[in-house]
Amino acid sequence: MSAQDEGYQIALQEAKIGAAEGGFPVGACIVSKDGKVIGRGRNMRQQSGSPILHGETAAFDSERGLPTSAFHGATLYTTMSPCWMCTGASVWFQVGRVVIGDSTTYTGPEDVLRNNGIEVVVLNTEECINISKKFIENSPEKWSDTVR
Amino acid sequence: MSAQDEGYQIALQEAKIGAAEGGFPVGACIVSKDGKVIGRGRNMRQQSGSPILHGETAAFDSERGLPTSAFHGATLYTTMSPCWMCTGASVWFQVGRVVIGDSTTYTGPEDVLRNNGIEVVVLNTEECINISKKFIENSPEKWSDTVR
Repeated sequence: MSAQDEGYQIALQEAKIGAAEGGFPVGACIVSKDGKVIGRGRNMRQQSGSPILHGETAAFDSERGLPTSAFHGATLYTTMSPCWMCTGASVWFQVGRVVIGDSTTYTGPEDVLRNNGIEVVVLNTEECINISKKFIENSPEKWSDTVR
Repeated sequence: MSAQDEGYQIALQEAKIGAAEGGFPVGACIVSKDGKVIGRGRNMRQQSGSPILHGETAAFDSERGLPTSAFHGATLYTTMSPCWMCTGASVWFQVGRVVIGDSTTYTGPEDVLRNNGIEVVVLNTEECINISKKFIENSPEKWSDTVR
Protein backbone atom coordinates (compact mmCIF):
# COMPACT_ATOMS: atom_id res chain seq x y z
CA MET A 1 0.00 0.00 0.00
CA SER A 2 1.56 3.28 -1.07
CA ALA A 3 0.90 6.71 -2.54
CA GLN A 4 1.33 5.09 -5.97
CA ASP A 5 -1.85 3.02 -5.56
CA GLU A 6 -4.74 3.87 -7.89
CA GLY A 7 -7.05 4.06 -4.87
CA TYR A 8 -4.87 6.62 -3.15
CA GLN A 9 -4.58 8.69 -6.31
CA ILE A 10 -8.37 8.72 -6.77
CA ALA A 11 -8.90 9.70 -3.12
CA LEU A 12 -6.40 12.53 -3.54
CA GLN A 13 -8.11 13.66 -6.74
CA GLU A 14 -11.46 13.74 -4.92
CA ALA A 15 -9.92 15.83 -2.12
CA LYS A 16 -8.57 18.29 -4.68
CA ILE A 17 -11.98 18.55 -6.38
CA GLY A 18 -13.49 19.22 -2.95
CA ALA A 19 -10.94 21.93 -2.25
CA ALA A 20 -11.64 23.56 -5.62
CA GLU A 21 -15.35 23.54 -4.78
CA GLY A 22 -14.66 25.34 -1.50
CA GLY A 23 -15.48 22.17 0.36
CA PHE A 24 -13.94 20.30 3.25
CA PRO A 25 -11.09 18.66 1.30
CA VAL A 26 -11.28 14.99 2.18
CA GLY A 27 -11.53 12.38 -0.55
CA ALA A 28 -11.92 8.62 -0.45
CA CYS A 29 -11.90 5.61 -2.73
CA ILE A 30 -12.88 1.99 -2.18
CA VAL A 31 -11.11 -0.84 -4.00
CA SER A 32 -12.65 -4.30 -3.76
CA LYS A 33 -10.57 -7.24 -2.65
CA ASP A 34 -10.23 -8.29 -6.28
CA GLY A 35 -8.83 -4.88 -7.21
CA LYS A 36 -11.80 -3.03 -8.71
CA VAL A 37 -12.66 0.57 -7.86
CA ILE A 38 -16.15 0.28 -6.37
CA GLY A 39 -16.57 3.66 -4.76
CA ARG A 40 -15.25 7.19 -4.68
CA GLY A 41 -16.38 10.41 -3.10
CA ARG A 42 -15.55 13.53 -1.15
CA ASN A 43 -16.86 15.40 1.84
CA MET A 44 -19.97 17.32 0.70
CA ARG A 45 -20.79 19.31 3.85
CA GLN A 46 -20.16 22.71 2.26
CA GLN A 47 -21.46 21.79 -1.18
CA SER A 48 -24.75 20.11 -0.17
CA GLY A 49 -25.15 20.81 3.52
CA SER A 50 -25.13 17.11 4.36
CA PRO A 51 -23.48 16.40 7.71
CA ILE A 52 -23.16 12.68 6.94
CA LEU A 53 -21.46 12.82 3.54
CA HIS A 54 -17.84 12.67 4.55
CA GLY A 55 -15.34 11.41 1.99
CA GLU A 56 -15.62 7.84 3.19
CA THR A 57 -19.41 7.65 3.55
CA ALA A 58 -19.78 9.38 0.16
CA ALA A 59 -17.59 6.65 -1.33
CA PHE A 60 -19.74 3.89 0.23
CA ASP A 61 -22.77 5.70 -1.20
CA SER A 62 -21.45 6.24 -4.71
CA GLU A 63 -22.31 2.90 -6.36
CA ARG A 64 -25.80 2.18 -5.21
CA GLY A 65 -26.31 -0.91 -7.33
CA LEU A 66 -23.82 -2.98 -5.37
CA PRO A 67 -24.73 -5.52 -2.72
CA THR A 68 -23.21 -4.46 0.60
CA SER A 69 -21.13 -7.66 0.51
CA ALA A 70 -19.04 -5.99 -2.21
CA PHE A 71 -17.32 -3.98 0.53
CA HIS A 72 -16.19 -7.05 2.51
CA GLY A 73 -12.44 -7.20 2.60
CA ALA A 74 -12.12 -4.07 0.46
CA THR A 75 -9.52 -1.35 0.93
CA LEU A 76 -10.77 2.10 1.85
CA TYR A 77 -8.39 4.88 0.89
CA THR A 78 -9.01 8.20 2.58
CA THR A 79 -6.99 11.39 2.57
CA MET A 80 -7.68 12.01 6.28
CA SER A 81 -7.94 9.74 9.30
CA PRO A 82 -11.59 8.56 9.54
CA CYS A 83 -13.85 10.13 12.16
CA TRP A 84 -16.05 8.03 14.45
CA MET A 85 -18.89 7.88 11.90
CA CYS A 86 -16.64 6.73 9.07
CA THR A 87 -14.86 4.34 11.41
CA GLY A 88 -18.22 2.83 12.32
CA ALA A 89 -19.15 2.60 8.63
CA SER A 90 -15.85 0.80 7.89
CA VAL A 91 -16.57 -1.75 10.62
CA TRP A 92 -20.20 -2.12 9.51
CA PHE A 93 -19.29 -2.75 5.86
CA GLN A 94 -16.42 -5.03 6.92
CA VAL A 95 -13.65 -3.47 4.89
CA GLY A 96 -10.37 -5.25 5.32
CA ARG A 97 -7.98 -2.31 5.26
CA VAL A 98 -8.00 1.46 5.66
CA VAL A 99 -5.21 3.47 4.05
CA ILE A 100 -4.90 6.98 5.48
CA GLY A 101 -3.24 9.89 3.69
CA ASP A 102 -3.04 12.26 6.69
CA SER A 103 -3.26 11.20 10.30
CA THR A 104 -1.46 14.24 11.71
CA THR A 105 -3.91 17.11 11.22
CA TYR A 106 -6.75 15.04 12.64
CA THR A 107 -6.57 11.56 14.12
CA GLY A 108 -9.75 9.53 14.43
CA PRO A 109 -10.25 6.41 16.57
CA GLU A 110 -7.87 4.26 14.52
CA ASP A 111 -7.63 1.69 17.32
CA VAL A 112 -11.33 0.98 16.89
CA LEU A 113 -10.57 -0.08 13.32
CA ARG A 114 -7.67 -2.27 14.47
CA ASN A 115 -9.66 -3.79 17.32
CA ASN A 116 -12.28 -4.82 14.78
CA GLY A 117 -9.82 -6.67 12.60
CA ILE A 118 -9.19 -3.92 10.05
CA GLU A 119 -5.62 -3.30 8.93
CA VAL A 120 -4.65 0.37 9.18
CA VAL A 121 -1.95 1.81 6.95
CA VAL A 122 -0.90 5.41 7.66
CA LEU A 123 0.94 7.09 4.80
CA ASN A 124 1.14 10.67 6.12
CA THR A 125 1.94 12.09 2.70
CA GLU A 126 3.02 15.71 2.41
CA GLU A 127 0.35 16.45 -0.19
CA CYS A 128 -2.53 15.25 2.01
CA ILE A 129 -1.16 17.06 5.07
CA ASN A 130 -0.77 20.27 3.08
CA ILE A 131 -4.31 20.12 1.70
CA SER A 132 -5.68 19.88 5.25
CA LYS A 133 -3.42 22.61 6.63
CA LYS A 134 -4.32 25.03 3.87
CA PHE A 135 -8.03 24.45 4.46
CA ILE A 136 -7.73 25.01 8.22
CA GLU A 137 -5.77 28.21 7.68
CA ASN A 138 -8.21 29.59 5.13
CA SER A 139 -11.51 28.29 6.55
CA PRO A 140 -11.27 27.76 10.31
CA GLU A 141 -15.05 28.15 10.69
CA LYS A 142 -15.76 25.34 8.19
CA TRP A 143 -13.21 23.15 9.94
CA SER A 144 -14.73 23.69 13.38
CA ASP A 145 -18.24 22.88 12.11
CA THR A 146 -17.09 19.43 11.13
CA VAL A 147 -14.16 18.43 13.30
CA ARG A 148 -14.04 18.16 17.07
CA MET B 1 -37.97 8.26 28.14
CA SER B 2 -40.89 6.12 27.06
CA ALA B 3 -43.01 5.00 24.13
CA GLN B 4 -45.17 8.08 24.78
CA ASP B 5 -42.37 10.46 23.77
CA GLU B 6 -42.95 12.49 20.61
CA GLY B 7 -39.52 11.38 19.34
CA TYR B 8 -40.39 7.71 19.71
CA GLN B 9 -43.74 8.21 18.00
CA ILE B 10 -42.09 9.97 15.05
CA ALA B 11 -39.44 7.23 14.76
CA LEU B 12 -42.20 4.61 14.77
CA GLN B 13 -44.16 6.53 12.14
CA GLU B 14 -41.05 6.65 9.94
CA ALA B 15 -40.57 2.88 10.34
CA LYS B 16 -44.19 2.31 9.30
CA ILE B 17 -43.77 4.54 6.24
CA GLY B 18 -40.65 2.54 5.36
CA ALA B 19 -42.55 -0.73 5.72
CA ALA B 20 -45.35 0.58 3.50
CA GLU B 21 -42.76 1.50 0.86
CA GLY B 22 -41.36 -2.03 0.92
CA GLY B 23 -38.27 -0.74 2.67
CA PHE B 24 -36.19 -1.91 5.57
CA PRO B 25 -38.49 -0.70 8.36
CA VAL B 26 -36.29 1.28 10.71
CA GLY B 27 -37.18 4.84 11.60
CA ALA B 28 -35.44 7.46 13.68
CA CYS B 29 -35.96 10.90 15.14
CA ILE B 30 -33.60 13.38 16.79
CA VAL B 31 -34.79 15.70 19.54
CA SER B 32 -32.44 18.49 20.60
CA LYS B 33 -31.53 18.94 24.24
CA ASP B 34 -34.03 21.81 24.42
CA GLY B 35 -36.81 19.57 23.15
CA LYS B 36 -37.11 20.43 19.45
CA VAL B 37 -37.43 17.80 16.71
CA ILE B 38 -34.34 18.44 14.57
CA GLY B 39 -34.25 15.31 12.46
CA ARG B 40 -36.30 12.38 11.26
CA GLY B 41 -35.78 9.68 8.68
CA ARG B 42 -35.98 6.04 7.76
CA ASN B 43 -33.78 3.41 6.17
CA MET B 44 -33.74 4.06 2.41
CA ARG B 45 -31.73 1.08 1.16
CA GLN B 46 -34.59 -0.45 -0.82
CA GLN B 47 -36.13 2.85 -1.89
CA SER B 48 -32.97 4.62 -3.13
CA GLY B 49 -30.26 1.98 -3.13
CA SER B 50 -28.18 3.94 -0.63
CA PRO B 51 -26.25 1.67 1.73
CA ILE B 52 -25.53 4.53 4.16
CA LEU B 53 -29.04 5.89 4.67
CA HIS B 54 -30.14 3.93 7.69
CA GLY B 55 -32.89 5.40 9.84
CA GLU B 56 -30.43 7.14 12.13
CA THR B 57 -28.09 8.55 9.47
CA ALA B 58 -31.12 9.66 7.43
CA ALA B 59 -32.32 11.57 10.50
CA PHE B 60 -28.93 13.28 10.92
CA ASP B 61 -29.11 14.16 7.22
CA SER B 62 -32.67 15.50 7.18
CA GLU B 63 -32.13 19.10 8.30
CA ARG B 64 -29.14 20.23 6.33
CA GLY B 65 -29.25 23.85 7.47
CA LEU B 66 -28.27 23.02 11.05
CA PRO B 67 -24.79 23.39 12.46
CA THR B 68 -23.52 20.02 13.60
CA SER B 69 -23.42 21.41 17.16
CA ALA B 70 -27.24 21.17 17.14
CA PHE B 71 -26.87 17.43 17.73
CA HIS B 72 -24.76 17.79 20.88
CA GLY B 73 -26.61 16.36 23.83
CA ALA B 74 -29.63 15.48 21.68
CA THR B 75 -31.73 12.33 22.03
CA LEU B 76 -31.73 9.94 19.11
CA TYR B 77 -34.80 7.73 18.97
CA THR B 78 -34.51 4.69 16.75
CA THR B 79 -36.86 1.77 16.27
CA MET B 80 -33.95 -0.71 16.09
CA SER B 81 -30.64 -0.99 17.93
CA PRO B 82 -28.07 1.07 15.97
CA CYS B 83 -25.53 -0.72 13.80
CA TRP B 84 -21.81 0.12 13.92
CA MET B 85 -22.17 2.94 11.37
CA CYS B 86 -25.04 4.59 13.22
CA THR B 87 -23.27 4.04 16.53
CA GLY B 88 -20.22 5.80 15.13
CA ALA B 89 -22.41 8.64 13.84
CA SER B 90 -24.00 9.01 17.30
CA VAL B 91 -20.55 9.30 18.90
CA TRP B 92 -19.33 11.67 16.19
CA PHE B 93 -22.31 14.02 16.53
CA GLN B 94 -22.11 13.77 20.34
CA VAL B 95 -25.72 12.89 21.04
CA GLY B 96 -26.44 12.53 24.73
CA ARG B 97 -28.89 9.65 24.66
CA VAL B 98 -30.08 6.89 22.35
CA VAL B 99 -33.55 5.44 22.87
CA ILE B 100 -34.03 2.07 21.17
CA GLY B 101 -37.41 0.59 20.26
CA ASP B 102 -36.18 -2.96 19.51
CA SER B 103 -32.92 -4.43 20.72
CA THR B 104 -34.02 -8.07 20.46
CA THR B 105 -34.22 -8.71 16.71
CA TYR B 106 -30.85 -7.10 16.16
CA THR B 107 -28.45 -5.78 18.77
CA GLY B 108 -25.74 -3.35 17.72
CA PRO B 109 -22.64 -2.40 19.72
CA GLU B 110 -24.57 -0.62 22.46
CA ASP B 111 -21.58 -0.76 24.82
CA VAL B 112 -19.68 1.44 22.38
CA LEU B 113 -22.35 4.09 22.90
CA ARG B 114 -22.16 3.72 26.69
CA ASN B 115 -18.35 3.72 26.70
CA ASN B 116 -18.47 7.05 24.88
CA GLY B 117 -20.70 8.68 27.47
CA ILE B 118 -24.02 8.19 25.71
CA GLU B 119 -26.99 7.08 27.78
CA VAL B 120 -28.76 4.08 26.24
CA VAL B 121 -32.44 3.44 26.95
CA VAL B 122 -33.87 0.18 25.62
CA LEU B 123 -37.66 0.12 25.38
CA ASN B 124 -38.19 -3.19 23.53
CA THR B 125 -41.73 -2.31 22.58
CA GLU B 126 -43.94 -4.97 21.05
CA GLU B 127 -44.78 -2.77 18.05
CA CYS B 128 -41.12 -2.23 17.09
CA ILE B 129 -40.27 -5.90 17.58
CA ASN B 130 -43.25 -6.97 15.48
CA ILE B 131 -42.36 -4.60 12.62
CA SER B 132 -38.87 -6.13 12.45
CA LYS B 133 -40.10 -9.73 12.72
CA LYS B 134 -42.65 -9.25 9.96
CA PHE B 135 -40.01 -7.79 7.65
CA ILE B 136 -37.56 -10.63 8.28
CA GLU B 137 -40.27 -13.21 7.65
CA ASN B 138 -41.44 -11.58 4.43
CA SER B 139 -38.12 -10.31 3.04
CA PRO B 140 -35.20 -12.40 4.31
CA GLU B 141 -33.08 -11.40 1.29
CA LYS B 142 -33.47 -7.67 2.01
CA TRP B 143 -32.65 -8.30 5.66
CA SER B 144 -29.46 -10.23 4.86
CA ASP B 145 -28.25 -7.51 2.47
CA THR B 146 -28.24 -5.04 5.31
CA VAL B 147 -27.75 -6.89 8.58
CA ARG B 148 -24.88 -9.12 9.57
